[in-house]
Amino acid sequence: MARVKHHIPTLGILGGGQLARMTALSAYRLGLNVAFFERKTPFPCQDLSPKCFVGDWRDKLLLTQFAEQTDIITLENEFVDPKSLAYLESLGKLVFPSSKTLALIQDKLIQKETLQGNGLNTTPFRAINSIDDVLNFANEYGYPLVLKSRQDGYDGYGNRTVKDESEIKSAISALGFPRRKLLAEAFVHFKKELAVMVTRSRNGNIRVYPLVETVQENHICKLVIAPASIDEDITSQALTLATNAIKAIDGIGIYGVEMFLNANNELYINELAPRPHNSGHYSIDACVTSQFENLLRAIFDWKLGSTDLITPAAVMINLLGKRNGAVSFEHINYGLSDEHVKLHIYGKKDNRVGRKMGHITVLNHSVERCLETAMLLESQFKL
Amino acid sequence: MARVKHHIPTLGILGGGQLARMTALSAYRLGLNVAFFERKTPFPCQDLSPKCFVGDWRDKLLLTQFAEQTDIITLENEFVDPKSLAYLESLGKLVFPSSKTLALIQDKLIQKETLQGNGLNTTPFRAINSIDDVLNFANEYGYPLVLKSRQDGYDGYGNRTVKDESEIKSAISALGFPRRKLLAEAFVHFKKELAVMVTRSRNGNIRVYPLVETVQENHICKLVIAPASIDEDITSQALTLATNAIKAIDGIGIYGVEMFLNANNELYINELAPRPHNSGHYSIDACVTSQFENLLRAIFDWKLGSTDLITPAAVMINLLGKRNGAVSFEHINYGLSDEHVKLHIYGKKDNRVGRKMGHITVLNHSVERCLETAMLLESQFKL
Repeated sequence: MARVKHHIPTLGILGGGQLARMTALSAYRLGLNVAFFERKTPFPCQDLSPKCFVGDWRDKLLLTQFAEQTDIITLENEFVDPKSLAYLESLGKLVFPSSKTLALIQDKLIQKETLQGNGLNTTPFRAINSIDDVLNFANEYGYPLVLKSRQDGYDGYGNRTVKDESEIKSAISALGFPRRKLLAEAFVHFKKELAVMVTRSRNGNIRVYPLVETVQENHICKLVIAPASIDEDITSQALTLATNAIKAIDGIGIYGVEMFLNANNELYINELAPRPHNSGHYSIDACVTSQFENLLRAIFDWKLGSTDLITPAAVMINLLGKRNGAVSFEHINYGLSDEHVKLHIYGKKDNRVGRKMGHITVLNHSVERCLETAMLLESQFKL
Repeated sequence: MARVKHHIPTLGILGGGQLARMTALSAYRLGLNVAFFERKTPFPCQDLSPKCFVGDWRDKLLLTQFAEQTDIITLENEFVDPKSLAYLESLGKLVFPSSKTLALIQDKLIQKETLQGNGLNTTPFRAINSIDDVLNFANEYGYPLVLKSRQDGYDGYGNRTVKDESEIKSAISALGFPRRKLLAEAFVHFKKELAVMVTRSRNGNIRVYPLVETVQENHICKLVIAPASIDEDITSQALTLATNAIKAIDGIGIYGVEMFLNANNELYINELAPRPHNSGHYSIDACVTSQFENLLRAIFDWKLGSTDLITPAAVMINLLGKRNGAVSFEHINYGLSDEHVKLHIYGKKDNRVGRKMGHITVLNHSVERCLETAMLLESQFKL
């Protein structure tokens, strides 16, 4: 690593979407360079660096070329094969999350076993190898239950909620079984969905972001409310649970921990994300140090920044595509009209209904005021 | 302009230094693309876009290629020939500052005549065409006086303070006279140097940033203190003076107005800058909307953002090179160790003594506390 200290280090990012873009903006502010490796064009980061690699993440020649151009490598999505990370590591590169950490997260069954093995509360789960396995799980935990692809699920893709026995067959075939491996999870009748970002540096230091409430719509994160309006006691449990989860997988970098809170005030870890997370975007404008900057600090082994809120309340609302076609800047003034509002647009050339095109963060003295502004602007805004 | 609304607009920047870099980071956050046109490599923005043009700003072929890749063009330094801007305008491009505005600013004699012609207070000045002209000016205003190159001066280059008659000859020859045109200015025995950023949009809307105090060392901006500790009355005069100056040159975009305040509490405009300015860097972290974002809003004809401070006090301190050689990230923790401190590094590959390598902005409840932190960190920090 001595080498890195005496020239401008280049951060390599596997992926070139909005998470990579926001990471790059933090990197550029700190004087770093960035290289992107994305699977196909177009992608939001292709105009942000002359160093863009396009192709299969398993292509060893491309991985080698990418490694040659970078000092430290991270990722923006967990669908990279851990073997690709191991290959980059074998070339002498520092990669965070490491191939080992990713292997503990990517397969949701292994992730849950790891958490459970460390005494951390997750939703009850079981590996599914047959319809009988589903029936047995249903006998134990009842309906509804959730069937999930063990890999590659995001934003609701790869999930099916099964309300009764008659739905099992269509659900498992829709999920690609037996080609794809599945697991079953008990359905949590949650009263709130919560999330915490955790940053952990190479020297083991940890900083935890505030507990936030997330609101999903059609399995896609719609709103994030910071801080969550939750008893101090439960908040403290949630932050500890999140911290221990990241220690359990030896996570270095930035990690999202999604949780459920049920009617009995019990917390369950839903899923881990080994990267910046939609539930942490509020931190760009609402915290002393953003999730993206702390990712850099963590993996470059610099001092972690404060994760404190700089505002009494913040609400992040996703700007999802409302139509299909080329992006438009015609309505941008809706996002620029209020001094409490911070606008972020991701540079995607094409709108698609439901696609994450940008987000707005509203800062104000109360969650209620933030929500009001956020909902109004989101309804007006079209990209 | 209808065209711009239905694809991702590309901002063209003449220049590729730190001002262009910070402008680009604001542009990327709003989903725009950026192309840079710099005179030679290496430059801080060359790793921030695949669209980099390198060559003479007067090269019509390069200007044409640059124009083809961009929707709206701005600049980060005033040494572009206004004829180059006029050429870009003749290609149908929107250019801000316009060739006309730049022509009123670039030649310091014309700039001062324009301000004076609009009834705005500037330091007394006169065109210098001979040694006798200097002697006559000295008879009227006394020594010391300041001789300046009418064009191309920055950070003290192109300025000479003349203490008595014996220094005239060496000063004018050091400034390149008669090859270069000169002007003389009366020396202002200022008690403070002040600055104001003004943003003015295509539709004529104006927002003025707070009055700040600037501290120069060897003609280079060292410190900026926001807000300046100045009577309300004078502050209000200064903001009006700055606003009128930008109206006088029909400035669209973002403009820096440097002023002197003398012992009699009289304000004089020292110089105008037709671009983001070092005295406005504090706005990135200390204001609702940064000078860079308001530049974009102004030239894309979007709603201007609030210029209010979000902190009781802020101090910006430049990180000037302390040695010659490759940049180093070894001491970066000094810039990351305090939650009141925001670090910006410009991505320059090579350190040079006195070169602007980055800056730190400190936010706190009082100017005194900010200054204390800023001075300490600057003394520890080496890039």
